[in-house]
Amino acid sequence: MTTTLQGVIPYIATPLAPDGQVDRAMLTRLCEHLIAQGVHGLCPLGSTGEFAYLTRDQKAQVVETVVSAAAGRVPVIAGVASTATADAVSQARDWAALGADGILAVMEAYFPVPDSGVVDYFSAVADATALPVTMYTNPNFQRSDLSPGTIETLSHHPRIAYLKDASTNTGRLLSILNRTEGRIGVFAASSHITVAVMLIGGLGWMAGPSCIVPGQSVQLYDLCKAGKWDDAMALQRKLWAVNEAFARFNLAAAIKAGLKLQGFDCGPPVAPQAPLTEAQEGELRTILNRLGAL
Amino acid sequence: MTTTLQGVIPYIATPLAPDGQVDRAMLTRLCEHLIAQGVHGLCPLGSTGEFAYLTRDQKAQVVETVVSAAAGRVPVIAGVASTATADAVSQARDWAALGADGILAVMEAYFPVPDSGVVDYFSAVADATALPVTMYTNPNFQRSDLSPGTIETLSHHPRIAYLKDASTNTGRLLSILNRTEGRIGVFAASSHITVAVMLIGGLGWMAGPSCIVPGQSVQLYDLCKAGKWDDAMALQRKLWAVNEAFARFNLAAAIKAGLKLQGFDCGPPVAPQAPLTEAQEGELRTILNRLGAL
Amino acid sequence: MTTTLQGVIPYIATPLAPDGQVDRAMLTRLCEHLIAQGVHGLCPLGSTGEFAYLTRDQKAQVVETVVSAAAGRVPVIAGVASTATADAVSQARDWAALGADGILAVMEAYFPVPDSGVVDYFSAVADATALPVTMYTNPNFQRSDLSPGTIETLSHHPRIAYLKDASTNTGRLLSILNRTEGRIGVFAASSHITVAVMLIGGLGWMAGPSCIVPGQSVQLYDLCKAGKWDDAMALQRKLWAVNEAFARFNLAAAIKAGLKLQGFDCGPPVAPQAPLTEAQEGELRTILNRLGAL
Amino acid sequence: MTTTLQGVIPYIATPLAPDGQVDRAMLTRLCEHLIAQGVHGLCPLGSTGEFAYLTRDQKAQVVETVVSAAAGRVPVIAGVASTATADAVSQARDWAALGADGILAVMEAYFPVPDSGVVDYFSAVADATALPVTMYTNPNFQRSDLSPGTIETLSHHPRIAYLKDASTNTGRLLSILNRTEGRIGVFAASSHITVAVMLIGGLGWMAGPSCIVPGQSVQLYDLCKAGKWDDAMALQRKLWAVNEAFARFNLAAAIKAGLKLQGFDCGPPVAPQAPLTEAQEGELRTILNRLGAL
Repeated sequence: MTTTLQGVIPYIATPLAPDGQVDRAMLTRLCEHLIAQGVHGLCPLGSTGEFAYLTRDQKAQVVETVVSAAAGRVPVIAGVASTATADAVSQARDWAALGADGILAVMEAYFPVPDSGVVDYFSAVADATALPVTMYTNPNFQRSDLSPGTIETLSHHPRIAYLKDASTNTGRLLSILNRTEGRIGVFAASSHITVAVMLIGGLGWMAGPSCIVPGQSVQLYDLCKAGKWDDAMALQRKLWAVNEAFARFNLAAAIKAGLKLQGFDCGPPVAPQAPLTEAQEGELRTILNRLGAL
Repeated sequence: MTTTLQGVIPYIATPLAPDGQVDRAMLTRLCEHLIAQGVHGLCPLGSTGEFAYLTRDQKAQVVETVVSAAAGRVPVIAGVASTATADAVSQARDWAALGADGILAVMEAYFPVPDSGVVDYFSAVADATALPVTMYTNPNFQRSDLSPGTIETLSHHPRIAYLKDASTNTGRLLSILNRTEGRIGVFAASSHITVAVMLIGGLGWMAGPSCIVPGQSVQLYDLCKAGKWDDAMALQRKLWAVNEAFARFNLAAAIKAGLKLQGFDCGPPVAPQAPLTEAQEGELRTILNRLGAL
Repeated sequence: MTTTLQGVIPYIATPLAPDGQVDRAMLTRLCEHLIAQGVHGLCPLGSTGEFAYLTRDQKAQVVETVVSAAAGRVPVIAGVASTATADAVSQARDWAALGADGILAVMEAYFPVPDSGVVDYFSAVADATALPVTMYTNPNFQRSDLSPGTIETLSHHPRIAYLKDASTNTGRLLSILNRTEGRIGVFAASSHITVAVMLIGGLGWMAGPSCIVPGQSVQLYDLCKAGKWDDAMALQRKLWAVNEAFARFNLAAAIKAGLKLQGFDCGPPVAPQAPLTEAQEGELRTILNRLGAL
Repeated sequence: MTTTLQGVIPYIATPLAPDGQVDRAMLTRLCEHLIAQGVHGLCPLGSTGEFAYLTRDQKAQVVETVVSAAAGRVPVIAGVASTATADAVSQARDWAALGADGILAVMEAYFPVPDSGVVDYFSAVADATALPVTMYTNPNFQRSDLSPGTIETLSHHPRIAYLKDASTNTGRLLSILNRTEGRIGVFAASSHITVAVMLIGGLGWMAGPSCIVPGQSVQLYDLCKAGKWDDAMALQRKLWAVNEAFARFNLAAAIKAGLKLQGFDCGPPVAPQAPLTEAQEGELRTILNRLGAL
């Protein structure tokens, strides 16, 4: 399995049965659907996958199921997230043993951690397995952030190769690309305009919304790769409504609602997260209809 | 066991062996010491207890050990913290089964949760057992907050009886006391001046620093209860240096360093938290010496 | 005129006629009323005085009027606020020439200013006249803040003698008192509980709300000075509703509405600030009625 | 004079003599230079022009000088900024009388202002003259922000036609473009990647850095207009170092330092802003050298 990442890599929603068990059949069906739509990788246990709400057992079941469903057709980048270094290392080893092709590493925090602690955490995760590591930072939801200086330091680790930055600051991505001189590949999050990130040299789009517009996301990626920037922008302008809905309708809840409309009932988001109201679901239906995604 | 809480209730540090096992012997010794110093309760799995860094197994061991050490002499208020309602409910039931006398409830969050979700979460925890619940909010470190309106709503639950507010806003405590009209008892956190909180009608001090100045904390509490406000303030002025060190030297790390100086080696804080540097340890030693706490 | 400040020093509202002229007659009448109620000083051009909304000419008229109305009976502490050092120095000199007894110094900012620039600004204001200087910091509304280290540095200036801190963090005041060892006297803002600030060693209350409850504020101060902390707290508990209304109903607008109810029509706040709605005015009337302030 | 804005419109630095007088000769020379380099407009009294640090008299002198220097060759968009509606209206009328071709409107705030107040303020400025209005929002430095809903409301005013948004959130610009359906033209600020803003449909670049790289900025704009996105991006990548320096070296100070290196000594920034240190000046020299801008 190649581990050079690029393209559209959805943060996959986690289907849960009413008793809290991972709905493996639905998860398999969802992976099959996404691969059929042409996505270039699968990312279980991202933020949209509700990593912050699942037990360790649920997480393991998710990784196992997605690896099995992918069956080597596309790389599986499994999420590792913890406040504690040892726990993160243990997750990384387990996901590698289950067959993941890469690690998406998130550092959670309660007490503030100085940059040296951030470097220690990500380095330990990268040292734990032979897999390439994508750093994921989301200063809106995580109580830690990867500063440009920290990213530069980490970029020298032989297996830390990618960044998904979910700030809204696209200029920061350009600064990081300039500063890491090819050592770090950058992916757009849903808070960035994908076409803009591709234009400045990004590798693709790694985020929740491509779960519900996978075909359109791949088309957008192909237009960018072909240098058809104006065509890409025309499509982007329409797709942006999905990004807006994702942010407005509370992320995992929005993706689960969209998937349900598309025939993939993943259950409600983990409580106390609330599912979409009927009015919100109606708005989302309108958006997906306009995009030909229903 | 009475469950009317008041007085000095330390957030107990969690002693961990190098292999990550809970050091039950040290934890027992620490509880014994605190009770001997006159504290009015014990709170395992508070923020200083590194609840955010421990596994479920470690947490259960901590509660079991503290309940056994307290042996009914003082109430044990055990911390429950999660992003997911079902997980929090399960923790509360387990701690009750292990013999805890009360629950300290924390809501963690990743995606934003509206007030209705906050109410659902705390209500579910309070419904889960027959134990009284202390709400704990720390807007600096938790990705959720208890608004005054939410607290008022929750104050009508028959078992939600106390609040520890770790904001720095003492006026907010007065607003809450006025608004909940006796239904919620308020405890000072280390970010408040204990004497000020006692003066406005608080019940005591529930925080990490009293682990390392338990006798002085009890003395402060007694002076307040006796209405000797000027004497209390004279002591408070000196004790404040401990609160300042606690904030400056990263909380759990500071308390574990202080306990080690007092002969209770609890190990370093869970990585990637860093232990105090030698210089910081020196400053802490000076502070504790001045207070007669070494 | 003594310049040792203490007690209740209202931030006076600025009465403006519909054409924007300072209503000198009303301002004089208001000062007379406040002095008759026993306040210990008058502070024109504080935040409640809408310093941030007035022209230089309006400001000069305000200072001149208040100095004339006070007629040496209580000290007049006049507000100086600017983003530019030279402008602040020029204001300070003008207010001194008009007969002010002290300067309340505020540093506004647009671009971020490092601590060295903050020290330069306040030092220049203090060097500009022979008057004692009260530093005023409000991290919620001003784009600069006085860090504890900066305050300590400035405390060594022979004329920088007082601090009004409008953060909500009362513990910060205790830290500053400990750190400046008698060189800086501290006043409560409306975001602090006056009694708590008095208990930790504060000098009094310098804020907008005492414009509409001057007699009650003086009574509170007297109880604190007499060490009758429990009686003070009983009064404080009632008065706190005014502080809450002040924060909820947008500060200058709330004070102007209250004064109008008391017969001092100062006009609406400067647009685009909005006056209170009828419903808000009704709530304020109820609060003032309960306190016997109507 | 056409008032359809587009292209590169520098926020002009304000040259001040040691006595605080506007250095009209230098300002005239600077305008001449920028026009010779091909800029499409001139914006006096933007943030880089230190509007927040100048007196009303200084501001009037700046507008008068720039209008006279432009002599109708490029439009002059003059900055209006205040906390008070009446003052802003008065500035707008004065700048129109002095011959400005458009207004850049900024709302400052001290006390929080609800959206209705924001709408009132900008509407009043737009009603004050016959000139087209560019809204300028900078949530990092101004104590108010233009929400997307407020912008949509204001977009229906016949003379509110442009937006400069100095957030770092480029996706927000796309949302605004989608929402205002052609009624609002959007300009990049230095915190956005110009090429990305042009790609999503922006009109140009309105910011301080183009004062020191005017020719390169015009070249970048021309490449974007020609749809040569990859060439534009190659140039953008190099130019980005200027944006980074601008943010790191404190904005007005950085531009004044760069202009001095280019032979336009505008004096230091208004105190307490500090000029660049020698080391910072050295870094800036290196950056400008690399770009052929020295």
